[in-house]
Amino acid sequence: MNASIVNIGDELLIGQVVNTNATYMLQALTHSGIAVVEVCTVGDNADAIESAIRRCQEHSDLILLTGGLGPTKDDITKETLCRFFGSELYENTEALANIERLFAQRGFPLTETNRRQALVPRCCEMINNDHGTAPCMWFNAGKKAIVSLPGVPFEMEYLIAEKIIPLVRERFKIGSIVCRNILVQGIGESFLSDLLEDIEAAMPKNTKLAYLPQAGIIKLRITAIGEGASSHDEIEKQVEDVASAVSKAAGQYIVGENVESIAEAVSNMMHSRRCTLATAESCTGGHIAAMLTALPGASEYFKGGITAYCNEAKHKLLGVAQHTLDTYGAVSEQTVSEMVQGARTKYNADYAVATTGVAGPAGGTEATPVGTVWMAVATPTHTVTMKKHYNGRRQQVTDRATNEVLAMLIRECENLPPNA
Amino acid sequence: MNASIVNIGDELLIGQVVNTNATYMLQALTHSGIAVVEVCTVGDNADAIESAIRRCQEHSDLILLTGGLGPTKDDITKETLCRFFGSELYENTEALANIERLFAQRGFPLTETNRRQALVPRCCEMINNDHGTAPCMWFNAGKKAIVSLPGVPFEMEYLIAEKIIPLVRERFKIGSIVCRNILVQGIGESFLSDLLEDIEAAMPKNTKLAYLPQAGIIKLRITAIGEGASSHDEIEKQVEDVASAVSKAAGQYIVGENVESIAEAVSNMMHSRRCTLATAESCTGGHIAAMLTALPGASEYFKGGITAYCNEAKHKLLGVAQHTLDTYGAVSEQTVSEMVQGARTKYNADYAVATTGVAGPAGGTEATPVGTVWMAVATPTHTVTMKKHYNGRRQQVTDRATNEVLAMLIRECENLPPNA
Repeated sequence: MNASIVNIGDELLIGQVVNTNATYMLQALTHSGIAVVEVCTVGDNADAIESAIRRCQEHSDLILLTGGLGPTKDDITKETLCRFFGSELYENTEALANIERLFAQRGFPLTETNRRQALVPRCCEMINNDHGTAPCMWFNAGKKAIVSLPGVPFEMEYLIAEKIIPLVRERFKIGSIVCRNILVQGIGESFLSDLLEDIEAAMPKNTKLAYLPQAGIIKLRITAIGEGASSHDEIEKQVEDVASAVSKAAGQYIVGENVESIAEAVSNMMHSRRCTLATAESCTGGHIAAMLTALPGASEYFKGGITAYCNEAKHKLLGVAQHTLDTYGAVSEQTVSEMVQGARTKYNADYAVATTGVAGPAGGTEATPVGTVWMAVATPTHTVTMKKHYNGRRQQVTDRATNEVLAMLIRECENLPPNA
Repeated sequence: MNASIVNIGDELLIGQVVNTNATYMLQALTHSGIAVVEVCTVGDNADAIESAIRRCQEHSDLILLTGGLGPTKDDITKETLCRFFGSELYENTEALANIERLFAQRGFPLTETNRRQALVPRCCEMINNDHGTAPCMWFNAGKKAIVSLPGVPFEMEYLIAEKIIPLVRERFKIGSIVCRNILVQGIGESFLSDLLEDIEAAMPKNTKLAYLPQAGIIKLRITAIGEGASSHDEIEKQVEDVASAVSKAAGQYIVGENVESIAEAVSNMMHSRRCTLATAESCTGGHIAAMLTALPGASEYFKGGITAYCNEAKHKLLGVAQHTLDTYGAVSEQTVSEMVQGARTKYNADYAVATTGVAGPAGGTEATPVGTVWMAVATPTHTVTMKKHYNGRRQQVTDRATNEVLAMLIRECENLPPNA
């Protein structure tokens, strides 16, 4: 079964927004065992939309469209689909009730423009968008399906995960699929691939190993798709076998299993050990705290963090000695050690992590060039520090330091007994 | 003049990598006044590549391809272009010299596989890639051009900026393009569109107004493309006229102009007023600090922030009275007021923002359901607070609260004299 994605929107054609919708959908479809053969971005232009759909019909069983469903004049996806299917718009009662509900909740009056969002082509199946006013629409075209989704990321993500993928599984024949992630850190992609060469060569044909690098971490994804008579248990066993072979070969680099991100690995570890954590951030500027608190349940282990962007805050709030800052500078082992101790003490936490460095583009010196980052982890028994120099731009430096210090935390934690 | 982009690579179709090449190329082309009408991603598959090129030729004068130029078997772009143009590969002397130079520089021996990278189709103009071994190739097809570039981001970026854009400007007639952003907050998309209906109706044909919603903020983008004899000054004036009409109609909702995000609007305001800022975050968990520090130059105005996820930290680090927490709870006007005062005092900052709420999915009560957020802004003269109830998931609540409290900050700041 093949799928295509058509992202619609003038704003996607001028490079002002990165098309993260495409990435999310590619992941969700691939994850469900559906191969995507084309992703296409076109503007809010009826001819372009129609020609993209026609073309994708040639090679795909499922075509997912996003965008162009808003209430404004530039949104023309619904009209274009009417023209394409020779259908007409009508007011869908369920869609209208949903819009009225959302407006009542927000305490806004419903205008004529908003009400127009309840219009959908007669030939489609309306799929309710519980989180927004633009309805999702499923069209059948012979044995193929065309699904139109809103472009607002969280609405689209909810609809894809909760409604569209389950419907596709129900309506198309898709084999069972088993996925498993292993997070690897501290080794480059090509070295890791050399290390796993024999495992890859010996894998059954229906099993794939993907390398997904993300700022210093490689997410290894093992995927097996059930073909013909192979049962779910069989493919689960296949994935399990590959996973244990990977664990044996690359164990020392593994920082998480069955998680999507290192923040999730930290969260699981802290929850299972009933430990608490605090952060002291300079160059990462709150990014570590934001990554950790983005996951539900963070309040059960994360006590908080101090972003100490200025020296004054490092001294006053984290208790870094003025002498340390004056003698060694803000980006130094001494400072990061005192920062991490400060965070652990101030928040009365079991563990703490700290970063201080130069994210750039300005602020580098000969001794401390842009990309230099000192990191530290404090545990109930000891403190470790590490210095790294990262290439890349501001965001890459921040992302890499965040992942690295959380990997340090996981390693230190693993080395301590569970009740330390 | 229209352009299209075709990104080639199996790895782009499984959501492993975000297609940042497309974003870079879109920005570079748009910035140069070249309208992109389609972006298309296909796998390393000759038929898919050829059909994408044929289709783009229908609507575009310039087609930029990336990827599939490596030395391995799965890289088939050159062979596909030979087939497409009825041409054959030959060893290009200049390309070979470049490859030899790069290998000598790295101290690696040149293998047969590497040498094959000097092969290019006879019918193309070879454009030397000073930073890599895959040559760039320009093909003329009637009055249209097809350019094949390597997929390695920094090689592609160098070639686009230094070689392809200058060549395109030389060989095609390009109109000027002018863009302008206006950030609007506190009004829904449909209400805003009603408000701007007459302005949109009266806009010249070459001018477009796009609505780009992002978590409670709408980025309005006005774009005008110079057609025929219209000069750059003329279209700049057109954009200026639309912008002032929007300012007049929706002035009270505008929180930024000529910026990409509200964090950038805050950064500009703080820099121009030479003011400092601190944050106290509970439910936003460091997200506000991370957004602000993601921009270069943040250290000049941002003193830091405290993420106080637990009550203990709210009390001990931000100075919220235990009595306040006990009597009114963590999610209350009293607590957020004391949090914002605490941040302003502890960091010795001119301004501070604070949030406390229930981001979900758990933790809601009848009195304080999931999505409830108290926000506060402290200025040199006063403190303001606001309570909101947001729909959506955890991240949506966090994003909306972040944008809302920064919009509050901008409004309070604007109401004070510049030297307050």
